Amino acid sequence: MSEILVVGSVALDSVKTTAGKSVEALGGSATYFSLSASYFARVALVGVVGEDFPREHKRTLDRRGVDLDGLKAVKGKTFRWSGKYGKDASNAETLATHLNVFKDFKPTLSDEQRRMPVVFLANIDPELQAEVLAQMKAPKLVACDTMNYWIESKPAAIKKLLAKVDIFFCNDQEAMSLTGAPNGLQAAEVLADWGPSVVVIKKGEHGAVMKVGTKFFVFPAFPLARIKDPTGAGDTFAGGFLGYLASSRSYGDVAHLKRAMAYGTTMASFNVQDFSTKNIENLGRDVIDERFHDLAERMSIPRADEMVKTRRAVAA
Amino acid sequence: MSEILVVGSVALDSVKTTAGKSVEALGGSATYFSLSASYFARVALVGVVGEDFPREHKRTLDRRGVDLDGLKAVKGKTFRWSGKYGKDASNAETLATHLNVFKDFKPTLSDEQRRMPVVFLANIDPELQAEVLAQMKAPKLVACDTMNYWIESKPAAIKKLLAKVDIFFCNDQEAMSLTGAPNGLQAAEVLADWGPSVVVIKKGEHGAVMKVGTKFFVFPAFPLARIKDPTGAGDTFAGGFLGYLASSRSYGDVAHLKRAMAYGTTMASFNVQDFSTKNIENLGRDVIDERFHDLAERMSIPRADEMVKTRRAVAA
Repeated sequence: MSEILVVGSVALDSVKTTAGKSVEALGGSATYFSLSASYFARVALVGVVGEDFPREHKRTLDRRGVDLDGLKAVKGKTFRWSGKYGKDASNAETLATHLNVFKDFKPTLSDEQRRMPVVFLANIDPELQAEVLAQMKAPKLVACDTMNYWIESKPAAIKKLLAKVDIFFCNDQEAMSLTGAPNGLQAAEVLADWGPSVVVIKKGEHGAVMKVGTKFFVFPAFPLARIKDPTGAGDTFAGGFLGYLASSRSYGDVAHLKRAMAYGTTMASFNVQDFSTKNIENLGRDVIDERFHDLAERMSIPRADEMVKTRRAVAA
Repeated sequence: MSEILVVGSVALDSVKTTAGKSVEALGGSATYFSLSASYFARVALVGVVGEDFPREHKRTLDRRGVDLDGLKAVKGKTFRWSGKYGKDASNAETLATHLNVFKDFKPTLSDEQRRMPVVFLANIDPELQAEVLAQMKAPKLVACDTMNYWIESKPAAIKKLLAKVDIFFCNDQEAMSLTGAPNGLQAAEVLADWGPSVVVIKKGEHGAVMKVGTKFFVFPAFPLARIKDPTGAGDTFAGGFLGYLASSRSYGDVAHLKRAMAYGTTMASFNVQDFSTKNIENLGRDVIDERFHDLAERMSIPRADEMVKTRRAVAA
């Protein structure tokens, strides 16, 4: 049985960055999330594409074992997004959004989908996120994301949804805009008051902060001097985070949540190293774990007793 | 014998932030550095003040054991700086700078000062930093900082100085502006090419990155949802970093450099919690170490075998 249900967009993205461009490449929040989570758990994707959705893209998801029973192909064109990034990779300028078949997306879950233990409501209309959640039968873990468009148009619906969510992912600018708080940490405090027991504030190249109970845990990004395309990094982060957590079957334990942060960071770092989903389509768990340990080593603070050992080793 | 020589400014600062204000309070790069480093090593300060420098400020430094033989009081007024911070605490708007007696600052070091093993050339004219360094007799470790004003007016002098420096501290915006690199990591690569074996890029609330050899080490800031006054955070960071490193007597070892980053982060976090030097004048090493361990715990990634232990403990 699949362990994580994800509901979100599957898209064709055209992206320009300082490193080059991609045209009508595989994209969408549910796509990035599914590929990333697939290295840790079984994922079932619920989404919609048009008749023009390339078979090779479906095969890309299929090869990663993503359950595509919930990916409907309907009459019309697939959701298309195009954007560009300047020197500052943290902000995309949207050039065009064509919702196409995604405009009428209103999923009805199958019995199997309703019984999945973990659900990720990726960035779609918050009212639709709530409708999907209402169809679930006692999920063990509910997580969601959102974005500026919904924060500006339906902030009340987001707040209402958050009362029913365990983990909320949000980038720092969006968190501040949603709450009116002057920084990401204060925004996380407000968001946690609205419901989620875990709030993850993503800061792109500056890493991420996780609030669990009253406590903040802080993580840098994996240091990459050169990136190619930041599109999908947030959903890839969430995929690594929830994929690991689902595989651990421990949904509230701080130690597992911290490892989940590091796996999210690791997966996002792979994603930004190439355009579209190219660099997360064909990883090995060994390659992922190698970078996870590399990250852990780079940010570890040696203990004083380890220093004493070093001195003795030198003296001996 | 003192272990660290610091050459820099001692000032009277007037600061406005969203949390309040301070008027003609103790400030200056050498001041923040000295107070911070004083918890780890003996510090000798070289600087200049005017006749109007309050005796209480001198006592504040004296109480922390800072050697003030090199702090000259001359005819005229003390260096004054005033600035304000908006919601974004990472950028100060300078309201006024009166160099006063600092304009003619040209220190001649004593024999004792020349023989100190560690020297920190705080933010002053890079040509003056080089003149001071030329007076030193075979120091074991040379570190320096700089700022926008010198980057704009004397970039070639900074580059020349860096060829003789072991550790360079710089904030990310300044590092990009000095090198023309599009991000802090690429800037660190360029700066390392110019000479320093260790480059520390400070990112305020987003932490800091350290480049040693070809490798980047990444550190978040200690998470504080509310800060009062960020003035001096960079020099306080450098004080904790170099103070710890001087006390370890290990100047190139990566493990010690990583602990130095964490001590720098810890000291800077205390500094921003109150105006001027108020919160770093009277700490105990126990309080500092407690936060150091708190930071280490917050950013630690539990190992997989620790998870197994937890499971067994639960199962037992």
